[in-house]
Amino acid sequence: MNPLFSQPLSVINAGLASFADNIQHAGGQAVALSWQPPGVGDRQSGLDLAALLAHPRVEAANQVAMERYLSAQPALVDVMSAFEAIPAMRERKLILHSGPPIAWENMCGPVKGAIIGAVLFEGWAADHQAAERLVLSGAIDLSPCHHYDAVGPMAGIISPSMPLWVIENKTNGRRSCSNFNEGLGKVLRFGANNEEVLKRLAWMRDELGPAMKAAVREMGELELKPLMAQALHMGDEVHNRNAAATGLLLKRLFPALLACNLPQDQVQRVVTFITSNDHFFLNLSMAACKAMMDAATGVPFSSMVTVMARNGVNFGIRLSGTGDRWFQAPANPVEGLFFPGYGVDDAAADLGDSAITETAGVGGFAMASSPAIVKFVGGTPADATNNSRRMQLITLGTNPAFTLPALNFAPTAAGIDARKVVDRSILPIINTGIAHKEAGVGQIGAGITTAPMVCFNEALHALAQEVNA
Amino acid sequence: MNPLFSQPLSVINAGLASFADNIQHAGGQAVALSWQPPGVGDRQSGLDLAALLAHPRVEAANQVAMERYLSAQPALVDVMSAFEAIPAMRERKLILHSGPPIAWENMCGPVKGAIIGAVLFEGWAADHQAAERLVLSGAIDLSPCHHYDAVGPMAGIISPSMPLWVIENKTNGRRSCSNFNEGLGKVLRFGANNEEVLKRLAWMRDELGPAMKAAVREMGELELKPLMAQALHMGDEVHNRNAAATGLLLKRLFPALLACNLPQDQVQRVVTFITSNDHFFLNLSMAACKAMMDAATGVPFSSMVTVMARNGVNFGIRLSGTGDRWFQAPANPVEGLFFPGYGVDDAAADLGDSAITETAGVGGFAMASSPAIVKFVGGTPADATNNSRRMQLITLGTNPAFTLPALNFAPTAAGIDARKVVDRSILPIINTGIAHKEAGVGQIGAGITTAPMVCFNEALHALAQEVNA
Repeated sequence: MNPLFSQPLSVINAGLASFADNIQHAGGQAVALSWQPPGVGDRQSGLDLAALLAHPRVEAANQVAMERYLSAQPALVDVMSAFEAIPAMRERKLILHSGPPIAWENMCGPVKGAIIGAVLFEGWAADHQAAERLVLSGAIDLSPCHHYDAVGPMAGIISPSMPLWVIENKTNGRRSCSNFNEGLGKVLRFGANNEEVLKRLAWMRDELGPAMKAAVREMGELELKPLMAQALHMGDEVHNRNAAATGLLLKRLFPALLACNLPQDQVQRVVTFITSNDHFFLNLSMAACKAMMDAATGVPFSSMVTVMARNGVNFGIRLSGTGDRWFQAPANPVEGLFFPGYGVDDAAADLGDSAITETAGVGGFAMASSPAIVKFVGGTPADATNNSRRMQLITLGTNPAFTLPALNFAPTAAGIDARKVVDRSILPIINTGIAHKEAGVGQIGAGITTAPMVCFNEALHALAQEVNA
Repeated sequence: MNPLFSQPLSVINAGLASFADNIQHAGGQAVALSWQPPGVGDRQSGLDLAALLAHPRVEAANQVAMERYLSAQPALVDVMSAFEAIPAMRERKLILHSGPPIAWENMCGPVKGAIIGAVLFEGWAADHQAAERLVLSGAIDLSPCHHYDAVGPMAGIISPSMPLWVIENKTNGRRSCSNFNEGLGKVLRFGANNEEVLKRLAWMRDELGPAMKAAVREMGELELKPLMAQALHMGDEVHNRNAAATGLLLKRLFPALLACNLPQDQVQRVVTFITSNDHFFLNLSMAACKAMMDAATGVPFSSMVTVMARNGVNFGIRLSGTGDRWFQAPANPVEGLFFPGYGVDDAAADLGDSAITETAGVGGFAMASSPAIVKFVGGTPADATNNSRRMQLITLGTNPAFTLPALNFAPTAAGIDARKVVDRSILPIINTGIAHKEAGVGQIGAGITTAPMVCFNEALHALAQEVNA
């Protein structure tokens, strides 16, 4: 003991800061370690972690899930109407929305507005009042996109007449879908449902969808991982920034489209529509990510997160090892930049299925690839790089298909391990758009948010019960 | 003196390393400063620098030149045949080549091959032998592109029938031109001149050029600086990497092209050609840079570099204050990556007018924007960023129009000051393609090179004589 007390003390304090205060008051020095107990101190999570960390069944299951995710090869194979692609739509009036399940009366403004718009678009009602009565009557099934192998950004509305991108994972033959991106401004996915919105949806159904179907048939299957990988080298993170990916898609689509012998004025309208929307690729990116995560789903005991999605009220996650169960909590606020004239009081809660991109290791996880995105979501390029590094602490591994130039081509962190999220108290980061809380106003900003810890606590608890059973 | 000698000496040694050796042998320590005399020790340059550094006339002239460069607004305004755009081509048989002037007998293989190709393409001779006889007879004027407000990559050949991009600097109304990019493989600019090459050139003259002329007319003038600035945020440095810029151009060009009512099969061929060439924007980038540098030209006493160009043998530069004079030296070798099967012995000397991009502050100067380019030219993303930082030591300032995300949106170094190059012994860095030394083999690699110091020594000497006169 002698040498310790005969020299100045070097103290690191973990836990309550007041312990360090005492030392400092006594004239000593102490470094306060930024530390908090696993699961932000949730006692049950501590017990669940004890059961799950280094558990051989969980480790083995995660290896299988990760391998299936890594080997997925999502390809754009077709364009179909939702009516064709989703059999349940042929049996009943079905409208899909983003995020976990939620009852009409609990939905946020933009999602309600978008559902009303879809009812009008389908011709199921003649006006807003009639549409709302129809929904309230229970005649329409409102279900999550994720329940039908689909994803949609923001409100995420998919109704039978809408054209869908059809993605096939060539490794397992399973398909996933997403709707088409409408562009910015007044659009259904932000809850707008006026004449302009419905007219655009009709045009997308009648001209854009068929043109894309013809072009995809002409082009042949398009593998999406290499295209996304290229876009990551061109400043996109393929969630909130898809400018390069959209350009890369155009290069492949347009020559094919021109070979289809469609009427020249239709081709011109289609090309003008796509070239004026830098987010056009987003829905393809999401469907590709959905295909990669679906590959990893349903591996018993795996703690890998396969879905993160928001319905404008709650944030929900699914784990590979807990199958179709949702673990939900109120969505965290979004920190970001608002368009002029708007502020945090105008914002809807975090919304949309687009967090499937982060679940698959891109988006916020790949922010280092997209220093310019900080102009859109806030922060500095160094923050973007640090976000990508930090996510490595909560994933099962990395995805060599997606490399980050700013990190000397390090692969992106991928395969979120719910155990690590809780153990390290580090939340998955998500780049996101911000919708106005009222239906139809549209996007009012963009920023960064996180998945709520409670989802992971509850998911871990469910998994621990399975492992202990 | 006492305190100095009563404590351990801290020695920094500048100059001969052997001075430090002596101190170390005597048991002391010395830090060797990496330093060499200005101009790599050229005595005359030392005297010239003494005359020019901080000279009020030079400083004032540089301010004018820099301001003109910064305020240039190059816009794509038209497509014309070289015959229309360059009046001298209507008076005599004129073929333009890259770099400073050079006689036929001294030219390198690829440039000779490209000139033969142009003679055949113009129908001035029926076969290779006849074409060479015609050139040897002196019936064809071979002149630098730069003598006619034009630029061309690699061999840089412009002959009367070729379509040219016409760029106008909206600030001063002056125009500059560049030819069209033929793609990779067997192409004229690498000295190939076979049937395939001539057929493609004919197609570019007959279909691509007219289609682009119609599209530009339909689209209206396209400002190029904002487009280049966007591309710098998407992983391009708009010299050796133009994938994003080409995509951004497509988004503007294609809707206009489709509105021109051209035959659908022509539109299809044009779109297929452009979408399969990621370098398509390069020639526009070069012409835009030429317009920016031409704006800064001819300011008496200015030490700003307005041209850097290579003819496959010599590297030549021009200064704003020395007008049309070239200062030349043998080109430095290129350090880079070779395509499989090729090596340094196969390489032609550094070639082409494309170093106009570095002269304008992009290309190698903006490498920090393009970490992924190191996969093409060698090195690491950190090297790319360091290159951009180092160039700030030899420029008059920076260009706020071009910002670099990886450097937290710092503006790119721009306006090379020949005095600083000599004074600091730091050579301008250039990203470049590597041509095979034999005509027609094509590109065999890409890498990084530098401008030779002798050009700057001689340019400074000429400027010093003007200042002293």
